[in-house]
Amino acid sequence: MTSINRALVLDDYPSGAPEARHFRLIESPVPEPAQGEVLVRSIYLSVDPYMRGRLRPGPSYAEPQKIGEVMIGEVVGEVVASRHHRCAAGDLVTADIGWQTHGVVRGDGLRKLDPGAAPISTALGVLGMPGLTAYFGTLEVLQPRPGDTLVVNAASGAVGAVVGQIARIGGCRVVGIAGSDDKCAYITTELGFDRAINHRTTNDMSGALADACPHGIDCYFDNVGGPITDAAIENLALGARIAICGQIAQYNDTEVATGPRNLRHFLVKRASLKGLLVFDWRDRYQEGLARLTRWVQSGEMRYREDIIDGLEKAPEAFAGLMEGRNFGKQLVRVSDDPTR
Amino acid sequence: MTSINRALVLDDYPSGAPEARHFRLIESPVPEPAQGEVLVRSIYLSVDPYMRGRLRPGPSYAEPQKIGEVMIGEVVGEVVASRHHRCAAGDLVTADIGWQTHGVVRGDGLRKLDPGAAPISTALGVLGMPGLTAYFGTLEVLQPRPGDTLVVNAASGAVGAVVGQIARIGGCRVVGIAGSDDKCAYITTELGFDRAINHRTTNDMSGALADACPHGIDCYFDNVGGPITDAAIENLALGARIAICGQIAQYNDTEVATGPRNLRHFLVKRASLKGLLVFDWRDRYQEGLARLTRWVQSGEMRYREDIIDGLEKAPEAFAGLMEGRNFGKQLVRVSDDPTR
Repeated sequence: MTSINRALVLDDYPSGAPEARHFRLIESPVPEPAQGEVLVRSIYLSVDPYMRGRLRPGPSYAEPQKIGEVMIGEVVGEVVASRHHRCAAGDLVTADIGWQTHGVVRGDGLRKLDPGAAPISTALGVLGMPGLTAYFGTLEVLQPRPGDTLVVNAASGAVGAVVGQIARIGGCRVVGIAGSDDKCAYITTELGFDRAINHRTTNDMSGALADACPHGIDCYFDNVGGPITDAAIENLALGARIAICGQIAQYNDTEVATGPRNLRHFLVKRASLKGLLVFDWRDRYQEGLARLTRWVQSGEMRYREDIIDGLEKAPEAFAGLMEGRNFGKQLVRVSDDPTR
Repeated sequence: MTSINRALVLDDYPSGAPEARHFRLIESPVPEPAQGEVLVRSIYLSVDPYMRGRLRPGPSYAEPQKIGEVMIGEVVGEVVASRHHRCAAGDLVTADIGWQTHGVVRGDGLRKLDPGAAPISTALGVLGMPGLTAYFGTLEVLQPRPGDTLVVNAASGAVGAVVGQIARIGGCRVVGIAGSDDKCAYITTELGFDRAINHRTTNDMSGALADACPHGIDCYFDNVGGPITDAAIENLALGARIAICGQIAQYNDTEVATGPRNLRHFLVKRASLKGLLVFDWRDRYQEGLARLTRWVQSGEMRYREDIIDGLEKAPEAFAGLMEGRNFGKQLVRVSDDPTR
């Protein structure tokens, strides 16, 4: 076993788009677990849009990432040494050790993975935080009913693909908005969405949504914000619900963007809007994971991963994610997956 | 009894602020009620912000006001002739006959008023549509809990004053935003609000709200929109609820105004926003009126009316309402109130 830990630390807060130069690779000895701790070797790192929000010094729902410290994030890894009675070397787990090859964490509360149930990488995507975000955001915030029209953007992404498939299973008309023709073809042919709109080639998003949603939008799951969401708000059906999950269109902004004042649409349509963070359903993760796992195992729910190899590529993968260059859940493979 | 009916008809859709010149006074014979109908003599006309939305040709939640037809609106009046078994001459009622001295309406569904219960003019304000809007908007949309901080704008107005008093009765900290020092003094000394902010003399609304709401805003009842609402959204507490009742700041706009893109605050604070129209609670009006009447009779709920005399003054009263020149529920007295 190597005795060197490699880690990416934040070197500076990005102004605008994050780039590789905002991170720095450092090496240090692999740490030893203390009593109650385990040492984890990273296999897959997750890069997620929420991370952009941490890369600024101001307050938000979580502490900002500190300069000079290992970049935060969840990994799928293998326990290489354990001083906790619940874990043993060889266990496959998820752990919040961030962008590094090795990390020490407390053993209690670690999620152990069953490689027989699903590929372990899915614990960072469809069967992880993004899948749970989609599950609770759709079922608890949007509460779609059979016959509703649901629109989701970033529709081929880790969250959006699950939102649309849950709605399809629930008897909705599902319209996905994505950023390439390939992604649009994927969500309609592979995932069973009814319609797809390529926002990069559509000049009139409001008209495209009106065309795709002849009875208006009952449920809108928003990962993106900006002009796409303006267009959705113009097409709400009576009693529509909006879930605000992300606003990636704004995350790299250096000043407050402006848009149309459109709250009057909410009045006219008696529509509602709610922000969501998956942590608020922490007590129900087991329910969500059990349901999502059954759908994945039965083939009713499909997923796609976009895997880049090499820890040093994590900043590049993250920057690409912020621009929609990924196709499916973005992962960084740091070491061999022993189950593949 | 006079045989001449005087009426204000819409002459043209206003672009921007409505003015007297957009209406025209016409005279015609007082109509005769047919079988099932009653003839009503207007005593008080109501002018309300929602009317501005009708003065444009485009679609909304209701049909637009037609050019050349009597301006819509609810009145309190006296039945002068009845061909409906439920009504008799001398009954005091509310009726949707618009801005005219006399009108004929179907007798079923008329609301009969008891002048012993409360002054009949209140049937257009605290014990009418504005009071019911406040009642259901507060209790059903915002659902304030004891200890919550509730902020309402247009706080001395027909809706805002009721919202704040219901919240005060419900054990909330209540902060009102109003447009003059007199209005601010009224809501704190007469209505029992905890704090008032004069939006015309406050340079930093976000800072003023932060000062008035040290634990953030749990409930925000919005009659106004625009920069005041931007400031409120910057001060939401975790789990905050917003009710969109009106957006009067935008009603006279001739093009779509822009404002900051601030949906991220909803995500961070897991906040929600919902548009409301009182008609959606039509089946529960009796409940609302009974409760509001008890509060008014006990003195727990106070109200203030701003009465202008003369049908021909209705356009001026309406224009003033759109600019906040009224102080309390704006009414136009068209003929003598026999109960005063």
